[in-house]
Amino acid sequence: MSAILLYELAGADADLRFSSYCWRSRLALLHKGLSFETIPWRFTDKEAIAFSGQGHVPVLVDGETVVFDSWAIADHLERAYPEAPSLFGGSAGQALTRFVNAFVDGVLNPVIGRMIVADIARIVHEKDRAYFRASREQRFGEPLEAVSARRETDVASFRLWLDPLRRVLADQPFLGGAGPMYADYIFFGSLQWARCVSAFELLAGDDAALFDWRERLLDAFDGNARRAPHAG
Amino acid sequence: MSAILLYELAGADADLRFSSYCWRSRLALLHKGLSFETIPWRFTDKEAIAFSGQGHVPVLVDGETVVFDSWAIADHLERAYPEAPSLFGGSAGQALTRFVNAFVDGVLNPVIGRMIVADIARIVHEKDRAYFRASREQRFGEPLEAVSARRETDVASFRLWLDPLRRVLADQPFLGGAGPMYADYIFFGSLQWARCVSAFELLAGDDAALFDWRERLLDAFDGNARRAPHAG
Repeated sequence: MSAILLYELAGADADLRFSSYCWRSRLALLHKGLSFETIPWRFTDKEAIAFSGQGHVPVLVDGETVVFDSWAIADHLERAYPEAPSLFGGSAGQALTRFVNAFVDGVLNPVIGRMIVADIARIVHEKDRAYFRASREQRFGEPLEAVSARRETDVASFRLWLDPLRRVLADQPFLGGAGPMYADYIFFGSLQWARCVSAFELLAGDDAALFDWRERLLDAFDGNARRAPHAG
Repeated sequence: MSAILLYELAGADADLRFSSYCWRSRLALLHKGLSFETIPWRFTDKEAIAFSGQGHVPVLVDGETVVFDSWAIADHLERAYPEAPSLFGGSAGQALTRFVNAFVDGVLNPVIGRMIVADIARIVHEKDRAYFRASREQRFGEPLEAVSARRETDVASFRLWLDPLRRVLADQPFLGGAGPMYADYIFFGSLQWARCVSAFELLAGDDAALFDWRERLLDAFDGNARRAPHAG
């Protein structure tokens, strides 16, 4: 069997892997019980993943197969390893996980990004700094520090938007039910993104349902996510 | 086999069944292919459903079993009729449908309610009018007409909130995948609620993915939802 490789976004510290999308893919590989190696990648390392035909991570190399985009990677793993634990729990589960994916990508990640973008600018590799600041300041139309300075306000709406997840976790231990599924990793990847780069706490201290769920996922797979280098 | 009865919220016109939650249950029964009768119920008919131990519809009577709350009704139907088409597609699908349920209940329905509450006040039965206006004006803290007067602004954020669903429907015909599942009925029930009581259009005319999906659900089950009396 060929080795499985996962290219992950890294900071100046090569062990600081902070992309929410890369965390989804790493946890999907762990969920499937597959052996894999990760390769640190920086924003400006376009040539290193040019073989994938595009310029973003995660990129998965599974033998002869190259897959980019976290959703496509999860879909590939589910098809290629049907005997391993399912990421979706069937076709309806996969269809509904798409909704979770779209909700987190479109609603949660933008506000998290605003809250932590100034922190990210501090942890990226020196060779990425100018690119990161210029591209994000163009996106936001103002200095990154000004964007993140509003995070005390942003975090209040962020916590409101977690309400659907909070309601579900009041009734079951994981979004996927009795055990974690890919839908859990989608949400968790976003919280882990923030935890890796920032000391700013996204969850309120008394938000027990969400807090305990995050703890369970930090502990999953021998504490893989908990042991990862982080700022928070 | 005993008859199945579904108590549904009705307007002054007994055939005007407008509750989003009752639509979820009706479509769940149709999905399961079950024969059932519906019974019109008004807000102040508390005695008529006192046998259920509470005062809200939908209430399902399935032989000796009485179930209230739309989620509990769907769960009951899935357990009681396992051979009929599944509403959830397995345990992961059901777990994830809870998230859709929480999202629609907590995020979408409140904004839809504000947009159409003045319309609802016009179509409720005469005996419900005073109760409906007083209870809703207490909730909103202002006249219902003032609440709904802001709907041109509210509809813009409402349409943004539909973005996760819109993204999914760009890739697959139903939220549940190739065919409709209970998650579809949850979203659709809310649009049908508005359609039944109001001429105000919630979807933009060029919102093809959502518009076409709604059309497919209006046509489902021999056009049951399309044929229902409505204002919109």
